[in-house]
Amino acid sequence: MNVQQTLKPYVIGLDLGGTNSVFGIVDSRGDIKATTAIKTGGFQTAEAYVDACIEALQPIIEQVGGIETIKAMGIGAPNANYYKGTIEMAPNLPWAHKTIVPLAQMFSDRLGVPVAMTNDANAAALGEMVYGVARGMKNFIVITLGTGVGSGIVVNGQLLYGSDGFAGELGHVTMVRGAEGRTCGCGRTGCLEAYCSATGVARTARELLATTTRPSLLREMNPEDITSLDVSIAAGKGDELAKEIYDFTGKMLGEACADFTAFSSPEAYIFFGGMVKAGELIMKPIREAYDAHVMPIFRGKAQFLISGLDGASAAVLGASAVGWEIQ
Amino acid sequence: MNVQQTLKPYVIGLDLGGTNSVFGIVDSRGDIKATTAIKTGGFQTAEAYVDACIEALQPIIEQVGGIETIKAMGIGAPNANYYKGTIEMAPNLPWAHKTIVPLAQMFSDRLGVPVAMTNDANAAALGEMVYGVARGMKNFIVITLGTGVGSGIVVNGQLLYGSDGFAGELGHVTMVRGAEGRTCGCGRTGCLEAYCSATGVARTARELLATTTRPSLLREMNPEDITSLDVSIAAGKGDELAKEIYDFTGKMLGEACADFTAFSSPEAYIFFGGMVKAGELIMKPIREAYDAHVMPIFRGKAQFLISGLDGASAAVLGASAVGWEIQ
Repeated sequence: MNVQQTLKPYVIGLDLGGTNSVFGIVDSRGDIKATTAIKTGGFQTAEAYVDACIEALQPIIEQVGGIETIKAMGIGAPNANYYKGTIEMAPNLPWAHKTIVPLAQMFSDRLGVPVAMTNDANAAALGEMVYGVARGMKNFIVITLGTGVGSGIVVNGQLLYGSDGFAGELGHVTMVRGAEGRTCGCGRTGCLEAYCSATGVARTARELLATTTRPSLLREMNPEDITSLDVSIAAGKGDELAKEIYDFTGKMLGEACADFTAFSSPEAYIFFGGMVKAGELIMKPIREAYDAHVMPIFRGKAQFLISGLDGASAAVLGASAVGWEIQ
Repeated sequence: MNVQQTLKPYVIGLDLGGTNSVFGIVDSRGDIKATTAIKTGGFQTAEAYVDACIEALQPIIEQVGGIETIKAMGIGAPNANYYKGTIEMAPNLPWAHKTIVPLAQMFSDRLGVPVAMTNDANAAALGEMVYGVARGMKNFIVITLGTGVGSGIVVNGQLLYGSDGFAGELGHVTMVRGAEGRTCGCGRTGCLEAYCSATGVARTARELLATTTRPSLLREMNPEDITSLDVSIAAGKGDELAKEIYDFTGKMLGEACADFTAFSSPEAYIFFGGMVKAGELIMKPIREAYDAHVMPIFRGKAQFLISGLDGASAAVLGASAVGWEIQ
């Protein structure tokens, strides 16, 4: 056994998104040594997708010294089952939307290294633990605020997968019960995601514009075209209505976190995703609502942090962290 | 080292309640070999309380063959901090209500065996895992329905203590937000406990009697005297209003469990405490509300079970399980 085989200084991270599949070869400090990408769609079968991935990977694997330098591969993917290494019924993946694809095994067979897979929010949580602001923490929750609201929960230093591999769906706790709850993409009503995702924020904007006559920069737009980015830009310009949208969103997130603390009492909540670029506009109402609603014995204990990972490479780093976690 | 020292076949369990402190010496199968009890109150200091405990323990320790046969001691107690082995600011314990008592260390110093302590709901969860219906399970939640609503959460085969030792306060997630939430003993409003504890059930009865004119056996009582036991007895006689109280209570518990599943996706919920004696009266609405509210990917996965531990000895068994868990 030569030194390189013993050390194996790199893992491959794959951020498998609905549009792009981004690869990075990453060292233990989180430096991305080489990167490449392909389109995720356009393949009829999982085999064809893996073929294209392997073809794209070969040059960057050679670039870092060959497959002997690779310890493992980690994948962050929608509808990923960590226990089975499968992608299950992923609606946005044409080669996996009506079937169960054993993707970890397929990559492992082709590359000859161990491969583990989890969903993107869990990968983000591992990324924070290995490279980011959660280094040294054993109990924390990452909340991803993007198109949806995702979560990765770490307890006792381990990612919480639950009995079936799908634990940590905190975007789908019920925040508004009964008939007035907003419909959610999961088929139910009143979920946190229906209010605090990017689409939820845009919906809050449309509701506030429709039910009030208050002035706002957002009135210059076609209501149907408003996105969370527009709300962010308007708030940045001092728009009061836009700020109120952030207050509403942050308040609901803070109240939800107060309930999450009753569950796992984390030392930190770490927010991740496009919406956290709003900074204090969203973080301040989160903290205030949390302090007002958390059980007294927990008050003042949890930190509220923004992800320490660089946005552009965060998902690949998170995926690579899944690889480092393989024993 | 003789054989007895090597084997140490017993642990001491202490169920430390506000009124009584019940001791049992328990073997690994959950057989209680000897038992005794003292009153918990009436002591000015923790030292005096421990003195009385040791005096009561001596005869039953001798009865099973002496301290050499004892592997460890486990304590289930209110406001217990597992990490520190302390009881902190327990309002119902005169010798601990304004201070932090290092009770585990005090017992360990006196007995010469390792001592661990956790709250009663966590002890119940360990009891189910070691002796009860959760044997072999790695992810489950015990919900105790008594004067309050407590919980013990097991993930990856470990009790969830969180960053501070106080995780698993599921009686204090918010079920009714805003001004209409009932006040809770924790100082906030709308908590699960305010509706689904024994006192919550009695309150639901008084509210229904006051806001309707429907006939009920419960109308024969002074409303202030109604307890959850009276509701149970009336429901057992077919009283429709009493059954509706159970439906309301079970529905709220089922909706709460649907949220808990989004967190840790347990394979089972195990209900414990006086209220579960109502059997299907409470379990059926729990299951129905859960099925109606849980996220589709989790549907049909979790079992809803009633504690497998004998009610009279369950708390002592749970406490002893804390002792068995010491590595």
